[in-house]
Amino acid sequence: MTKLKIALFGAGRMGVIHARTVAGHENAELAFIADPNVEARDRLAKRHGAQVTDTDGVFADRSIDAVIIASAASTHADLIERAAATGKAVFCEKPIGRGYAQVKRAVATVEEASISFMLGFNRRFDPHFGRLARQLEDGDIGALELAVLTSRDPAPPPIAYVREAGGIFRETTVHDIDVARWLFAEDPVSVFAAASAMTSEELRAEGFADTVALTLTMPSGALAIINNSWRSAYGYDQRVEVHGASGMLRLENVPRSTVARAGYDGIVTDVPEPFFTERYGEAYAAEIDAFIGGLATGDSLKPDHCDGFEALRIAEAAVHSVTTGAPVMLKDWEPDDA
Amino acid sequence: MTKLKIALFGAGRMGVIHARTVAGHENAELAFIADPNVEARDRLAKRHGAQVTDTDGVFADRSIDAVIIASAASTHADLIERAAATGKAVFCEKPIGRGYAQVKRAVATVEEASISFMLGFNRRFDPHFGRLARQLEDGDIGALELAVLTSRDPAPPPIAYVREAGGIFRETTVHDIDVARWLFAEDPVSVFAAASAMTSEELRAEGFADTVALTLTMPSGALAIINNSWRSAYGYDQRVEVHGASGMLRLENVPRSTVARAGYDGIVTDVPEPFFTERYGEAYAAEIDAFIGGLATGDSLKPDHCDGFEALRIAEAAVHSVTTGAPVMLKDWEPDDA
Amino acid sequence: MTKLKIALFGAGRMGVIHARTVAGHENAELAFIADPNVEARDRLAKRHGAQVTDTDGVFADRSIDAVIIASAASTHADLIERAAATGKAVFCEKPIGRGYAQVKRAVATVEEASISFMLGFNRRFDPHFGRLARQLEDGDIGALELAVLTSRDPAPPPIAYVREAGGIFRETTVHDIDVARWLFAEDPVSVFAAASAMTSEELRAEGFADTVALTLTMPSGALAIINNSWRSAYGYDQRVEVHGASGMLRLENVPRSTVARAGYDGIVTDVPEPFFTERYGEAYAAEIDAFIGGLATGDSLKPDHCDGFEALRIAEAAVHSVTTGAPVMLKDWEPDDA
Amino acid sequence: MTKLKIALFGAGRMGVIHARTVAGHENAELAFIADPNVEARDRLAKRHGAQVTDTDGVFADRSIDAVIIASAASTHADLIERAAATGKAVFCEKPIGRGYAQVKRAVATVEEASISFMLGFNRRFDPHFGRLARQLEDGDIGALELAVLTSRDPAPPPIAYVREAGGIFRETTVHDIDVARWLFAEDPVSVFAAASAMTSEELRAEGFADTVALTLTMPSGALAIINNSWRSAYGYDQRVEVHGASGMLRLENVPRSTVARAGYDGIVTDVPEPFFTERYGEAYAAEIDAFIGGLATGDSLKPDHCDGFEALRIAEAAVHSVTTGAPVMLKDWEPDDA
Repeated sequence: MTKLKIALFGAGRMGVIHARTVAGHENAELAFIADPNVEARDRLAKRHGAQVTDTDGVFADRSIDAVIIASAASTHADLIERAAATGKAVFCEKPIGRGYAQVKRAVATVEEASISFMLGFNRRFDPHFGRLARQLEDGDIGALELAVLTSRDPAPPPIAYVREAGGIFRETTVHDIDVARWLFAEDPVSVFAAASAMTSEELRAEGFADTVALTLTMPSGALAIINNSWRSAYGYDQRVEVHGASGMLRLENVPRSTVARAGYDGIVTDVPEPFFTERYGEAYAAEIDAFIGGLATGDSLKPDHCDGFEALRIAEAAVHSVTTGAPVMLKDWEPDDA
Repeated sequence: MTKLKIALFGAGRMGVIHARTVAGHENAELAFIADPNVEARDRLAKRHGAQVTDTDGVFADRSIDAVIIASAASTHADLIERAAATGKAVFCEKPIGRGYAQVKRAVATVEEASISFMLGFNRRFDPHFGRLARQLEDGDIGALELAVLTSRDPAPPPIAYVREAGGIFRETTVHDIDVARWLFAEDPVSVFAAASAMTSEELRAEGFADTVALTLTMPSGALAIINNSWRSAYGYDQRVEVHGASGMLRLENVPRSTVARAGYDGIVTDVPEPFFTERYGEAYAAEIDAFIGGLATGDSLKPDHCDGFEALRIAEAAVHSVTTGAPVMLKDWEPDDA
Repeated sequence: MTKLKIALFGAGRMGVIHARTVAGHENAELAFIADPNVEARDRLAKRHGAQVTDTDGVFADRSIDAVIIASAASTHADLIERAAATGKAVFCEKPIGRGYAQVKRAVATVEEASISFMLGFNRRFDPHFGRLARQLEDGDIGALELAVLTSRDPAPPPIAYVREAGGIFRETTVHDIDVARWLFAEDPVSVFAAASAMTSEELRAEGFADTVALTLTMPSGALAIINNSWRSAYGYDQRVEVHGASGMLRLENVPRSTVARAGYDGIVTDVPEPFFTERYGEAYAAEIDAFIGGLATGDSLKPDHCDGFEALRIAEAAVHSVTTGAPVMLKDWEPDDA
Repeated sequence: MTKLKIALFGAGRMGVIHARTVAGHENAELAFIADPNVEARDRLAKRHGAQVTDTDGVFADRSIDAVIIASAASTHADLIERAAATGKAVFCEKPIGRGYAQVKRAVATVEEASISFMLGFNRRFDPHFGRLARQLEDGDIGALELAVLTSRDPAPPPIAYVREAGGIFRETTVHDIDVARWLFAEDPVSVFAAASAMTSEELRAEGFADTVALTLTMPSGALAIINNSWRSAYGYDQRVEVHGASGMLRLENVPRSTVARAGYDGIVTDVPEPFFTERYGEAYAAEIDAFIGGLATGDSLKPDHCDGFEALRIAEAAVHSVTTGAPVMLKDWEPDDA
């Protein structure tokens, strides 16, 4: 079997992670790495014996089967368009693009070009989330009635990053929205969101929130509650609780160790990992493996551009709900800038 | 020290619990028990060496210092009015009365008569909730930012009871609303509620919900999320999670035992108690103890009629939010039937 | 049904606990309380409306059906002999007497007199231990292969008490030996014990241990490991772990509350209760209830004097094992002072 | 910096694991793989771009700096002797050799040749054990008083393997003995062991045990209790509990996931991994990393041949204790075949 030839955009934190997975994969070859930061690019290429090039170099090479987009978010939409134009499969880190209109265009392009496309919603590939989803599918708790999804980052991103990302709903909540869509296997009919800035004067001054609560109502009447915060003293908090007719499934945080100390002051157990690269290491490897495997078998890739688009549309509706103070009915809803 | 003379209305489930506490209390005497079910009344009186009488008998006896109202909910408001008229202190099980207007009148009467009044919001007296509240007050997690309150009953009450109680918000959610007011030590400015009937065709047919999600927004911007259900396969579910600037406090369910079985199929631990009388036994004793103690020292009683009224008003607003599909701003808000 | 007339010896810590249970029992009457500390005796009698008397007064009253012995350990054997002589049923707090020879005589007397006798090995009546024993009996883990029993007191008793009690094996370990006999439902064939004094120079100087490890070998080949200490920073530690052919049952400590705090320094949960009166409150009530119930029905009482004797004999063998540095074969073994 | 040239003996389960670590290491090169199973050898070599050879080929190549011995246990001692003769550093999977006499000779050879030697006692490199050891060293619980070490394999090895390995003490318990020596940082003065065959008639018939309990007494008087079994329905059980003057440290099993299901039948959480390759994946990578790092810096390697020898000597004494039914004083003790 010939190996899949893959080019990687981005030699930053996520690029380093994906490079290792591709380079160690028995059915793939890390052919190129491109990054405007040539030092990082060269170092990473050397580690894995890959070639270096730039964007044009990747798309000019017809032997490249697929690209992994782990570069700056501002470059995503353009790289997707070029991959579509040259017929290359795409694995893209979230987001698909900057702003609803840009994402919508990119998604339409992918659709027209019929290229294979997978979005890096990593939770779907985490073994803990995977087990919960499997138990749900196996009917372990019957029909779904209520879910509580909790995601808390240790601290807000720098304000410049927040501005570019468009705030907590588009940056953080979008992951929980995808988890809700995935676990319920249906799309919500409405969303209500409340939001506050509790952690920083800087965020508040620019109208950004860091603490949010969403209620999604599903066609079946089931309710999904999402709560997010950009403050968590005890590490990266990633939990799910799902209630069905015959029980509850609950995904707790993964502690850094299973060591407890019992003393006068209580029983002290370990906190979760500090942030996403530590928490989702297995998921990052598994999603790339699923991408490579899916391309080899021709099976459809999930989550795809439509999942990314739909999660973003609901996140935009949540932003709108905060602005208007009212729930948003999601059928055919689009933001004004669409 | 002379013992406080107490008359008890109601020889049912809660009456039996309160009778035991009063009869065994060193500063109180269980003088009278009244209940239209004379068989239950006589049996309970005999067990504790109390006298039996009827409503008129209690209020005609000027030596009675206080009454405990644990009779049918439909009798509460009238008994409160008569206690106010005769200057007796009142411990009243939730609710204060039937419907917002009746409760408002009863609360006004209590206020005018200046009698001592305490409402049986039991969670405030549970040792687990108490520890969480104390840690919060001690600043263990800093300023509050977000809370998730979960209460799930094992099954819906009979439909006739639901009709009389006015549905899940007034029956169940009102407890979580009181917990939110207590823990945040401030009153919410708005409430949004979503509701569904997932467990029974009967409830749905009459427009009652059994699965609800509320978002309360506090003056500080902090958010309180409440989720309730009338279905829980694993027993009575009573949990609290509170996030502050420097950490989280979390109250988990109390399992029936600490025994775990590890086998091929997993590690199986024990479920919580089935329902409230088992879960809150210590709280019921503690609240009566606080009532008797407060009357002895003259300290003000908490929670009082105002706490009961405010929790009900917010529950009514939640009902309104479901009807209109919009959040309710709580300042000066009253239901139409007020 | 006529109530059982019970006399209580001892108005100390355990006397207070048992008085409450008897006084509130529907099938028993707390007739007498006797204690050389007349102040404590009178106070307790007043609280429960009991009469006061002395030892002779109790045994002279032929209407007394049963005695509860919760007085100083040095009085136990004599009170048992007198109860046997007057045909009264006995509930006796551990120990049956001081020293092996005295206990052996008392047990023989009980046997000859054929009085009903129950020993206060409280763990058998704790709901958590009870659940574990029931699951074991139900075959939840198959045939037993290995047990690890852990009991740790917060601190050593005063040295005078240690001298009188005869050290940790006779005072503390004897409980775990009884638990092993109860759970395995067979008697060990041998015991090996190792012991050290780690917590106090005073104990070491007098040859007493505070940290011990025992290996009991059962006829089936199953092994029971007991570890005890008189030091535990985090409270009274009472745990059981039992392994069978198809799994493990594990009894964990009961935390004082289910509240956890998550912060920078870890997740902090609550410690167990500080000591036995707090931990075993339910067990103390349940054992007295079993005693009263057993006398009413005529069912045989468990654990009885033979259980007490056998547990003590094994504890004595453990002492001998430490002295000789070798295991003791238990069949027909007796200490030299027998 | 020039990379360390490493040859690997063994392309089986452990060889595959170590090959991956060496091949991906930035300071090492996987130069050769040798294994009599040429198919496995060639496949593994191809995966990592290594050369294949045989034992003579490895030792004839003077450019090879170090060997990793992950071949059949019967080959270990001979490979160590040849490495000593050719001055190559050695990382050796447990055991050092077959039988006490052979191990003693091999250890003496290593000592004389002064080669660097590291033994694969993997628990010392597991992040959970590491955290416990660090907290211990930091004085989090004060001076050690008691430890309970639990290791349970899911099932006995095949009888042929048991014969070759010499039974559970030399195969399994030796790991816990090393953990005890490591955590206490002192050597026990005596060992007592009890043993039974509970899981298989075949083992019993040949005089092998599958269920054992050891008591090690430390010079300080501290006690270490080890319990092992070759039966565990719920997976590979690896736990540590250490008590000190000011508290307890406890290492619990690592569950396969953090998902719990709550239903009518209880709260079901996930079991640990099935066996050592899954449980100790991180440890295997970390120990090789420590080996390569230690050779680069010249720091002394731990655990070394002396640690391996001492753990084996204590395991032999445990076997002797079972045979004689008495504890063994460890000072200068050697088995008869020494």
